[in-house]
Amino acid sequence: MSASAPTACVLIIGNEVLSGRTQDVNVKFLGARLGEIGIPLREVRIIPDLAEIIVTTVNETRARFTYVFTTGGIGPTHDDITSECVAAAFGVPWEPHPEAWALLSARYPPGGFNPARQRMATMPRGARLIENPVSVAPGFEIGNVFVMAGVPQVMRAMFESLVPRLEGGAPVLSRAIHVAGVQEGTLAEGLGAIQARHPELDIGSYPFYRPAGNGVAVVAKGTDAAAAEAAIVEVAALMHALGGDPIAGEPPP
Amino acid sequence: MSASAPTACVLIIGNEVLSGRTQDVNVKFLGARLGEIGIPLREVRIIPDLAEIIVTTVNETRARFTYVFTTGGIGPTHDDITSECVAAAFGVPWEPHPEAWALLSARYPPGGFNPARQRMATMPRGARLIENPVSVAPGFEIGNVFVMAGVPQVMRAMFESLVPRLEGGAPVLSRAIHVAGVQEGTLAEGLGAIQARHPELDIGSYPFYRPAGNGVAVVAKGTDAAAAEAAIVEVAALMHALGGDPIAGEPPP
Repeated sequence: MSASAPTACVLIIGNEVLSGRTQDVNVKFLGARLGEIGIPLREVRIIPDLAEIIVTTVNETRARFTYVFTTGGIGPTHDDITSECVAAAFGVPWEPHPEAWALLSARYPPGGFNPARQRMATMPRGARLIENPVSVAPGFEIGNVFVMAGVPQVMRAMFESLVPRLEGGAPVLSRAIHVAGVQEGTLAEGLGAIQARHPELDIGSYPFYRPAGNGVAVVAKGTDAAAAEAAIVEVAALMHALGGDPIAGEPPP
Repeated sequence: MSASAPTACVLIIGNEVLSGRTQDVNVKFLGARLGEIGIPLREVRIIPDLAEIIVTTVNETRARFTYVFTTGGIGPTHDDITSECVAAAFGVPWEPHPEAWALLSARYPPGGFNPARQRMATMPRGARLIENPVSVAPGFEIGNVFVMAGVPQVMRAMFESLVPRLEGGAPVLSRAIHVAGVQEGTLAEGLGAIQARHPELDIGSYPFYRPAGNGVAVVAKGTDAAAAEAAIVEVAALMHALGGDPIAGEPPP
């Protein structure tokens, strides 16, 4: 892929993911969607709800990647500190955001927009809201950092609402093939040669284990569909030559 | 928790996780198990199969954390480069490991221990093997870095085999309570006060959404079970005071 392609980093902010309480599913969604819009995900960091770590990580990654997307830590409780940490990272005041304040104060009955909820309407100065069509409380963008909720259904809705603002590159396309009864170690030499002939592609090999039989899936990714298809045809020939009976696509779950 | 408690970092190495092809489940397992043995997981990085990134990340994290655990990239194919990158990070030769070589050469029929599979028996000089009771090909440890497979069932077996070598601290214990029909924003102020009274604990609040009703789960973590239980009793009283009917433990799935 081109050296000038935009890149993405995702920060998963939350003790509950690090402690094993919560299974993250946001990385898989964002990795797939970012590839589709040509902003390949290059790194993920999962970090705790600790101000110093969040500030340092935001600053390190926003300097290295075109876009940084954060999930988690924007609710009303004491452990929701992402927003104020992003303000600190950018060196701007953390202050009531008029538009967010209006949205949230209208959401609750009189007296319900309490100090805890007012924190959800407090943002880095200059932040632009990211709409939350699920549960109102918005995310925000500042610079190249996009701050979203951690709850998957809310994060997904926020991400889709901000996609039109992102400048993507060529979509990353994927072609796959799989074969049962052939081992990775048998396929490896020929597969390495195919990768060497297609340096513009990222060819990966993934063993699978199924009650119906084990095997290997090979995935070719890149921005050139014809190249990915050509490489997969070569992989199919290799699998045949090794006595296998390859089938297009990923193995069934 | 004590400032001298050991810490862990996990590196998930693999394009397939960043592209969204593969749902990682190793972080959840390792986060839970490391907490149980008193080596809390402090950071995770998910990085691509790129030598420069792997080398830099291994060196940065092994300097910051007591233990670094990697998963992925130790198979026989061209994209399996974790082992040689760890050698480069430590500045030692990457060379045949006699014990691994013996294990793997005995595993295959004559001629089957081909150059691709020989790569799985090639390791940083000074590496100590991590047993693989599932599929033979071992992981290894060097310094404070533990290199494991990415396939979950193999990684789990490798991790359990190396646990006796790790110097853990006090186990991180967890107590939970949940309530339906109370919102996080209502609970937040009182919960913040409880956290402030128990600075030795990490108290987290997690909204849940279920067909049977939405609510909030609160989890108190720390090395002192009595303190965690005392905090949860205070949270229960708070939930009651707000009109809820709290139930011990996490909400049912």
